[in-house]
Parts: sequence; C-alpha cells; structure tokens
Amino acid sequence: MKASVNPAVNPAVAGETPEALVERMARAGRIAQRALALMDDPGKAAALRSAASALRASEAAVLAANALDVAAGKANGLSGAMLDRLMLDPARLGAIADALEQVAALPDPVGQVIDRSERPNGLKLSRVRVPIGLIGIIYESRPNVTADAAALCLRSGNAVLLRGGSEAVHSNRAIHAALVQGLCNAGAPEAAVQLVPTQDRAVVGAMLAAAGLIDMIVPRGGKSLVARVQADARVPVLAHLDGICHTYIHAAADTEMASAIALNAKMRRTGICGSMETLLIDAQFPGAQAVVAKLLESRCELRGDARACALDPRILPASANDWDCEYLDAILSVAVVDGLDAALAHVAQHSSHHTDAIVTSDAAVAERFLNEVDSAIVMVNASTQFADGGEFGLGAEIGIATGRLHARGPVALEGLTTYKWQVRGSGQVRP
Amino acid sequence: MKASVNPAVNPAVAGETPEALVERMARAGRIAQRALALMDDPGKAAALRSAASALRASEAAVLAANALDVAAGKANGLSGAMLDRLMLDPARLGAIADALEQVAALPDPVGQVIDRSERPNGLKLSRVRVPIGLIGIIYESRPNVTADAAALCLRSGNAVLLRGGSEAVHSNRAIHAALVQGLCNAGAPEAAVQLVPTQDRAVVGAMLAAAGLIDMIVPRGGKSLVARVQADARVPVLAHLDGICHTYIHAAADTEMASAIALNAKMRRTGICGSMETLLIDAQFPGAQAVVAKLLESRCELRGDARACALDPRILPASANDWDCEYLDAILSVAVVDGLDAALAHVAQHSSHHTDAIVTSDAAVAERFLNEVDSAIVMVNASTQFADGGEFGLGAEIGIATGRLHARGPVALEGLTTYKWQVRGSGQVRP
Repeated sequence: MKASVNPAVNPAVAGETPEALVERMARAGRIAQRALALMDDPGKAAALRSAASALRASEAAVLAANALDVAAGKANGLSGAMLDRLMLDPARLGAIADALEQVAALPDPVGQVIDRSERPNGLKLSRVRVPIGLIGIIYESRPNVTADAAALCLRSGNAVLLRGGSEAVHSNRAIHAALVQGLCNAGAPEAAVQLVPTQDRAVVGAMLAAAGLIDMIVPRGGKSLVARVQADARVPVLAHLDGICHTYIHAAADTEMASAIALNAKMRRTGICGSMETLLIDAQFPGAQAVVAKLLESRCELRGDARACALDPRILPASANDWDCEYLDAILSVAVVDGLDAALAHVAQHSSHHTDAIVTSDAAVAERFLNEVDSAIVMVNASTQFADGGEFGLGAEIGIATGRLHARGPVALEGLTTYKWQVRGSGQVRP
Repeated sequence: MKASVNPAVNPAVAGETPEALVERMARAGRIAQRALALMDDPGKAAALRSAASALRASEAAVLAANALDVAAGKANGLSGAMLDRLMLDPARLGAIADALEQVAALPDPVGQVIDRSERPNGLKLSRVRVPIGLIGIIYESRPNVTADAAALCLRSGNAVLLRGGSEAVHSNRAIHAALVQGLCNAGAPEAAVQLVPTQDRAVVGAMLAAAGLIDMIVPRGGKSLVARVQADARVPVLAHLDGICHTYIHAAADTEMASAIALNAKMRRTGICGSMETLLIDAQFPGAQAVVAKLLESRCELRGDARACALDPRILPASANDWDCEYLDAILSVAVVDGLDAALAHVAQHSSHHTDAIVTSDAAVAERFLNEVDSAIVMVNASTQFADGGEFGLGAEIGIATGRLHARGPVALEGLTTYKWQVRGSGQVRP
C-alpha cells in the first residue's frame, strides 16, 4: 500500500504538443496496464471499493468543484437539461460511489476460459479472456462517466485514458483525484486511470490518431461527437450511434399487451437510445385505434402514413424524413403495414440496427422476426426500453454498440476483453 | 435451381467512377447477403460442393487463363517465387476444389447460441451468432485466395467482394466465373461472391472508404498491402501484420526437446508468419551450444548478442535492428537472457504479439509465461509453426489476426460472424 499520492496527477507540461502529451500518457497507461493485467480478482475488487471510499470521503471537494461547473454552465447559458446532467448532490455522488462497489462485485472476466480443445497430436488449446489494453474514453458533460467508465475498465484489467467535456472539467478533476487516491491506497498503479489535463480539442485528435498506443476508443455522448470520432479515428472505435427502434404490432397481438408495450417503449423515457421511434401496425390488427388513442392520451405526438392517419384525426401526416428520425422526444412515427414481410422490409430499410421488437401471440411469426431482423437486439413481446446492460444482467455497460464487430448491443465487462490462445504441448513439432 | 447463369458477372460500366462501382457492387452484395443469411446449413454446404464441381468442370478454362497470367508474369520479370505462387496445374486446381468441399463439411457457425439467461422478470435472453454482412477481401497474387476466401465467407453467411492482384487477373476471373456458376446451380444468389471487374487501384481506395456498405475488410498479402489498408480504411479491418515470434528456452528445458522445437520453429518453413525469428536462451540452460550447433548445421544464419556469440564462433554479431526484424528467411537472432523475467521483458519489448513460445519442464514457469505474455498465441513446449487455423482444428482460416479486437490468432468461420441478442418476453414493460 502506498502511504500517499499526489492527487494532481498528469500535470500538463509547458510547451508539450497534444501528440506528445497523448504519447506520454499512453506510455504510462500501458505500463500501468501490464501491472493491472496481473492483479487478481480480489485485488481489483478491493481497489474499486477503496476508490468508492475515497470518493465518499471527498464529497465536499467534489461538490465544491461541481458548483464551479454548474455556475459556469449557467453563465454560459447551458440548457436546463444540460445543467441537470451536470449537477451533483450528495445523493448523486453516493450513487456514483455505489456504482463503483457494484462493479467491484461483478465477476472478473479476465482469465475466463472461453473454450478448450485437444488436438490429435496432443496439443491442448484454450482460449482465455484477457484485457484489451489501454482504452480511451471521450465523453461529454455527465461527470458520472468519469467514475463509471474507469470502474468498468479497471475491473476488466484495462488502463483508461479519460477525456471529459469542458462543462464538467472541475467535477471530473475532483472525481478523478479521489479515484486515484483510492486506487493507490489499495495498491493499484496510479496511471491505471488517467484524466487528460487540458481541454485543448487537439488532444482528442491526437487520441484518435494514436494507433498502437491506445487500443480502443469508446465515445460517449451525442451523435455529432460519435460521428466525429468514427470519421477521424485510426484507433478501433466501439461506437454507439442512433437508436431508431421499431415495434411491430402483428395481427395476432393481444391489444392490451400491445398497448402497454407501445406506451412503455415510447413514453417511459423518451430521451434514451432504446426508446421506440416508429410503430408499425399490422393492417389486420384489430386493436389499432385503441393503441394509438392510448399514446395520444399520454401526450405523444403521432405522425402517420395515410392509413395510420385514418385511424385517428389527431394523427399528423408524416413526411419522408420521419421514418429515419431519432426523435428522442414524445414524438412517434406510425405506419400501417400489410403483414410480417412488409414489416420486415420497413425495419430492414429504416432501422438503425439497435433494437427492434414485435408483439405477437404467433410463435412462428415471432421466430421469423427474431431470425430475420438484423439488429443488435431483437425482442418479442417486450418493451424496447429494456435495451440496457443492467436490465440484461450484465451489471453495468460502457455503452450499447451498434457496429457489427467485436461486440454488439449492451457492452459490459466481457466487451472490454479480448482473448489469447494458450497452447500446452509436450515437445510437438510440426511435420 | 437456376437453369443457367451468365458467368460474365459484374461487368464494368463505361464511365463509372470507382466509388459508383463499389457502391453498385456493395448494394448488390448486401441484397444477396440477406438471402444468404436465411439459407440453412445444408443449403450453404450444397452450394459450396456445387462450386467445387463447377471448378473441376472448368479445369481447361481456368488453366488456360492461368497460362496467360504466367506468361505475362514471365514477361514482366516476376521472381521465381512469385511465379510459383501464381502457377496452377491440375493438382493445384484439384486441391482448391478439395478445399471448397472441406469448408462445406465444417459446422455452420450461424445460429449457434453463445449463451442464454433468464431475467427475474421472465425475459429470456440468448446471444446467437449471425453473419457479419458484406466482407471485402483485398489480396495479392495467389489465385487460390479467390476460392478459399469466397468459401469461408459464404459458409458463414457473408457475401464477399473480392479484389485480387493484377498478376492473377485472368486466373481470378476464370475461378470466379466457375464458382458463381456452381453457386447459382445450387440456388445461391449470384451476387454472394463478386469479383471487382477492373484492376484500377482507385477501386481499392473506394472499398476502404465504403463504411456502411462494406462491413469488414480483410487484407491478405505482404506488409505494405496490409499497412496501406490499415492506414486508409474507414471500414473496420481484420489485419494480420508481422509475425516476430520468439522461443524462450528456459533453464529447466530438456535439451533434445528444445533443439527439436527450435529447429522446427525456424526451419520447417521460413517464409510463414508463425516461424520463429528470435531465440532466447536462458543463461542457466546447459544445452545452449548443442541447440545453436543444430541450427547452424541446418544452414541457418545466426545473429547473436555478445553472450550468444560466445556460444559458437559461427554466430554473427546482431545489430539493434535484428530484434525487431521479421526475416521470413533462414536467419535467426539469438539472445542469452537471465531468467524468466528477462525473457518476458524481451518478449514484451520486441514481440509483434503473434505467437511466442517457451520450452521448459517447470510447470509453474510455463504458467507464468502463458499468463504474462500478451500475444495472440502463447505456447509451451511446442513449435511456433503450429500457429495455423488447420492445426488448431478450425478447418481453415481467413488469416491470423494480430489486432486485439473482434478476433485474435487464427480466424476461421467463427471470426466471420458477429452476434445478436434475442429477447423473448411475455408482455414485460420496464418499470
């Protein structure tokens, strides 16, 4: 156990270029990661619990720092929603510390054996999970990401290089200082969790270009941030883009179930990526008017095609753009479709491949939907708002991946690992 | 079953830009892939067997096309090794057709359930393997890649866009025409396997830029090809770079085993990525002179550090570059190291993270090496030349991945799939 640590880690060096800063931090992170990769499960869990304690002990300092950010945000005219995301209080800070302890309690993925085999020549093969290495997180205003992302990376044996948004700069620094204090108290390497010490945007570019130094970038934030990261990165990116999620109410759906699912999928929280943006109603579904009436009564604006508009005079006509729009608001596009194939065709054309659902009591139709819809998450008779790592039993998530490689859907600890092949022989040479 | 097919698929359109060509072919490939994703296991296997039959039936046409390439290669002064890679004869063409049948006989990864769980609210989750989508293969002179890569992609439900090297252009076209004839005869979509109809290098750039149209690029060829692809691609790349493979002979190694493994690891085939490039000999290993003598007698050039040179006067002094050099030839760098930690440090500094091996009879030392070496493949008491999909029981491989994400080491059918989450509910809404 280290007796003390200087919480002012990673100071900027005068005159250092963004590229030199990233290289210096990445090299330190990679050295720390080698030590982290060899820490055992109880050691990493203890380090996270120690970080949680340190964060609780730093409540006054973190809230004071957060007050600076909130004041600056008000002066800069941040929206109420943005200020709410930014603001910490004792309860929210306690929840962040609780989350660290919850991640500490998750099973360690490192060392898990994915599969084993033995070859006819006696070679014994196993694939074993190992950390990815150094992960760069580029995120916007929520200061809880500083702790959440650090915890998931550390739990899976990865070092992390954090670059938070300017709005939360004081909060992020205070949270980071507390985390590092706690981690070091428990014997974890100081550079396992580093925060970029400058808000110079050129540092983001240098991180994206740091192939060979940073192993993966995870952008967390709005569409423009993620799109910029994807467009510029030379480092592999685990990205979460749009959630244009569909619910298709099949002819053989129970009206009450369909109505409850549609209402929940759209209105439980409208601002999350798993919220439904388009409702497809089968022309043969008898409960269509009841479902749309429920949505309208919950103050959801509906925009329909011609047949949907005929269901209720309160439905506005949709424009062509509506079918490709992630509203993230109490607005829903509605189309009437002729059967499963028409629904599948609409989903194939307009889905962002995040989460799509069907409501039906016909098991064969459900299986066809599950098999033929090419999205990260495909659901039968459930609300698309279940698209979440916690709801999937993964404990926590670093994001919901909409790309096709490495990991799809909610990405938790396993998605922050890769594997290696271990081969045990007894002197075999290849003929 | 289609009665006939025009083998002159994908004709170039006059005046079409490289971007328009790639977009047209990619869209056709994506439509074909949707059909392919729904073909069942026997259907895909039958299509590959049909392709093998068609290739055998096209022997005369393929060999005549290949003769054109070989003649052009000679006229253009291709090296003997390059001409040998390019040249087909009835036996080699038969082996390519056999390989198609072997891939047909492999288990279909699509639809395999990776894991299942049930949530307290009754939601049933399963992760199911699905194809990646449309895969672009960019390769150099070996015409067998045309058939091998197409077979692996098709077996795993992916469509493929092939762009072969100019040296093999006639061979590739003839092989491709036969494959498509065979696939279509068995009811597979014609655009499942497409060959870029022009050698314009700008088409490679357009493929690399086609994010959203091509899901993954696999470069197969020399270091400069792979490096160019990695530097320029906006599409995710599954890349295989250097194989700077080490073998560490620990103090407690059996001399005869160590000698046999070192000789095989270096000299069985010197030109493959799994061949050993650096031998680390423990200063306490008593059989060092015997091991180096065996290598020298097999006409391997040894380049050593000072202590290695002291083992035998025939060893040349190594320069600093030698420790980072992939010779792919009968040349080996040799260093004497003081114990496991020094060996691990050398490997950490110089390995390309492809394959590294230890020879030891000490089980605890072996386990430390297996755990602490951060390479795609780590071996104990075996030759690094076993780094191969066939030797690993995977049937065939699209390459040996040295990156960290998605797949590592030999990549076979499983590496050509991703997964989706299927969620089966009974009306659940999220509280």
